Amino acid sequence: MAELKNRRWLLAMRPEGIVKESDFRWSETGVPPLKDGQMLVRNLVLSFDPTQRGWMSMDTYMPAIPLGQVMRALAVGQVVESRKPGFVKDDLVQGLCGWEDYTVTDGQGLFSMQKLPAGTDPLLASSVLGLTGLTAYFGTLAVGCPKPGETFVVSGAAGATGSVAGMIAKIKGCRVIGIAGGAEKCSWLTKEAGCDAAIDYKHEDVGEALSRCCPKGIDVYFDNVGGEILDLVLGRIANGARVVLCGAISQYSEPAGVTSYPPRNYFNLVLRSARMEGFLVLHFAHRYPEAIADLKEWLAEGKVRNKIDVQHNLENAPRTIIRLFIGANFGKQLLKLADPR
Amino acid sequence: MAELKNRRWLLAMRPEGIVKESDFRWSETGVPPLKDGQMLVRNLVLSFDPTQRGWMSMDTYMPAIPLGQVMRALAVGQVVESRKPGFVKDDLVQGLCGWEDYTVTDGQGLFSMQKLPAGTDPLLASSVLGLTGLTAYFGTLAVGCPKPGETFVVSGAAGATGSVAGMIAKIKGCRVIGIAGGAEKCSWLTKEAGCDAAIDYKHEDVGEALSRCCPKGIDVYFDNVGGEILDLVLGRIANGARVVLCGAISQYSEPAGVTSYPPRNYFNLVLRSARMEGFLVLHFAHRYPEAIADLKEWLAEGKVRNKIDVQHNLENAPRTIIRLFIGANFGKQLLKLADPR
Repeated sequence: MAELKNRRWLLAMRPEGIVKESDFRWSETGVPPLKDGQMLVRNLVLSFDPTQRGWMSMDTYMPAIPLGQVMRALAVGQVVESRKPGFVKDDLVQGLCGWEDYTVTDGQGLFSMQKLPAGTDPLLASSVLGLTGLTAYFGTLAVGCPKPGETFVVSGAAGATGSVAGMIAKIKGCRVIGIAGGAEKCSWLTKEAGCDAAIDYKHEDVGEALSRCCPKGIDVYFDNVGGEILDLVLGRIANGARVVLCGAISQYSEPAGVTSYPPRNYFNLVLRSARMEGFLVLHFAHRYPEAIADLKEWLAEGKVRNKIDVQHNLENAPRTIIRLFIGANFGKQLLKLADPR
Repeated sequence: MAELKNRRWLLAMRPEGIVKESDFRWSETGVPPLKDGQMLVRNLVLSFDPTQRGWMSMDTYMPAIPLGQVMRALAVGQVVESRKPGFVKDDLVQGLCGWEDYTVTDGQGLFSMQKLPAGTDPLLASSVLGLTGLTAYFGTLAVGCPKPGETFVVSGAAGATGSVAGMIAKIKGCRVIGIAGGAEKCSWLTKEAGCDAAIDYKHEDVGEALSRCCPKGIDVYFDNVGGEILDLVLGRIANGARVVLCGAISQYSEPAGVTSYPPRNYFNLVLRSARMEGFLVLHFAHRYPEAIADLKEWLAEGKVRNKIDVQHNLENAPRTIIRLFIGANFGKQLLKLADPR
C-alpha cells in the first residue's frame, strides 16, 4: 500500500490550557506494508471526545499519546486490506484510530477494533449507538439508578452524552433538568430533548436556578463538567443522592493533575448519605449488546433523539477538537472524512 | 423533683475555629416537674463525638443547638423517675441528653432513648457497643465492602471509630494501614490494634508513606479526617476503590459550610471507576441487633479491642470536647459523671 498517501495530524506538544491548533503538526507520509495480524483501515468519521484532552497530556487509564505520534481518536472506518483473521476488505469497523486518512492497526487493546454490521450509518455508530450513547446508558442506569419521580440533573445537557443521559432519565420517569450554555441549547433541551427545565449556565445564576428547579433537592446528578457546577449541585443533593461522575470538561484544560475548583461541598455526601461515583464505559463491555438494543428501540420510538455536530475534512481536525473545549459543539462532535464504499 | 440541683453547661456562642471553653457557660438550676410521656434521666457517661461540632454551629441532619440551651450530647443514663410508658426507675438508657447532671426527655426524635439490658457497662455501651462501634461496623461493612486481600486504609485510626473500623477490616482479611498522630498511637496500632502498618501524620510525609505502604493502591479508605489526607488517598486509589466518608474532623473547625482543603483529586474516582460515599449510622437502625451481636462476639474473641479515654466530672466537659478536636484523645472520648445505682 506504499502508493497510498496518508495525511496525518501529529501531537506536537502537550497542551497548556485550552487545546490550540499549534499543539498539532501536519504531516504527509505513505502507508507501511501490513504485518501478520494487522489491517489497514480508511477512516470515515472521527469522534471527538473530552477524554482526548487527557490522552494528550498525561498517562490516565491509558498511556499518554507520545509526542510526534499521530493524534489518537476513536473512529469508524472501513477495511482496505486485512492480514488480521476475522476482518476482510470493506468491513466497517470501529475503534481506536487517529487523525489520519489511514490507520494501520492490530485492533487490540483498549477500544479494540469492533466490526459493525454492513450498512451501518457511520455517524450513528459514532454517536448515540457508539461509546457516547453507551456512556450515557450505563452512567445513567447502572451508576445513577434513577427511580420514577426523582429529580435528575445533567450538565453538558446539550452535549453528546448529556443529551442522551437526560432522555434516558426521562424514559425512566424522572423530572429532568438540563444545564447547558446559551439560549439556543436551552431551548432545544425543553422543546426537543424532553427536559422539564433548562438552566443556561452562561446567563443564569446556576445555584439559584438549581434551588428553584429542584425544591426537594437533586436525587441524581450526571456530571459532565465538574468544577463550580458540580459543587453547586453537591450543595443541593437530596438524601440518598447519586452523583455520577462522567466527565469534568471544565477542568480538563487545567495544568495536569490539578483541579482548579474542587468540590468544597463534598461533605454533603455524609450529611445526605449520598454517593459520588466514577465509571469507565469500557467496564460494561459485556453488556453493550443489551444497551445497543435498548437505544435502538428508543431511537425508533422517538424517545431518544440523536443530535450530532458534523464538521468536514481532515484539515479541520484541530479546529474541531477546540469546538469541544469551548462549548461550541451542539450535540456529538464528529468530523466526516469520507463515505463508505 | 424540684429539690434536685441540676448543674449544666449551656452553649454560649457558636464556635469559631477550634471549640473553646468560653463557648460554654456554666449554669445551675432545678429540675422541672415531669409531664406525661417524659422521664428524668441521671446522666452517667457522656459521649464526645465529632458530630457535636456541627450541632454547635449550624443546622445539619438535625437543627443546631439553640444558643443558651444545654449543650447536646449522647449519653448513657439511669432513669430516676418516669412518666413515659415502657420506662421505669433505675432503667439504664442511652440516647440524646446533654451536658448536665439530669435530663428531662420524652425520648423521641433522632437518637431516641433506648433501654439497655440491666447490668450493662455504661462505658462499653458508650463506645464499641454503642453508636461509635456501630458506625465503624456499618461504614466498614455496608459502605466499604472490604474483600479478603484488599488494602484498607483508615484515618483517625487510634480514635473511637477508626480503631474499630480497622479491626473489622482485619477480621475480613484486609491488609490494614492506620493513620494516626504520634508515635504512641502508631505503636499501639501495629502492636495491639492489628494494623499491618501505621503512618504518623504528624511526623511522616503521608503521601510518600501511603505510596510505600500501598504499592497496589488503596481499595478501601475509611475517612474520619477529610482535608489533605483524603486528597492524598484519592490520588492513590486502586481500580474499583470505595472511599467511606465517615467524618472530616480536620475540617469541622473551619467557618460554617467551607472546607479549607477540598478533594482536588476527586476525578480519580472516574479514572479508577471508584466511589466515595457518605452515610449516617442512624439509617442502619434496623440492623443494629446483628451488628451488636457480631461486635460482642469479636470482643469476646479478642479480635476487637475497646480503647476508651475516660475523663471525669461534669466541670471538665468543655476541656474534654477540646481533646477531641486537638487529637489529644486516644480511643473513644468519654466523660464519666457517676456510677449506676
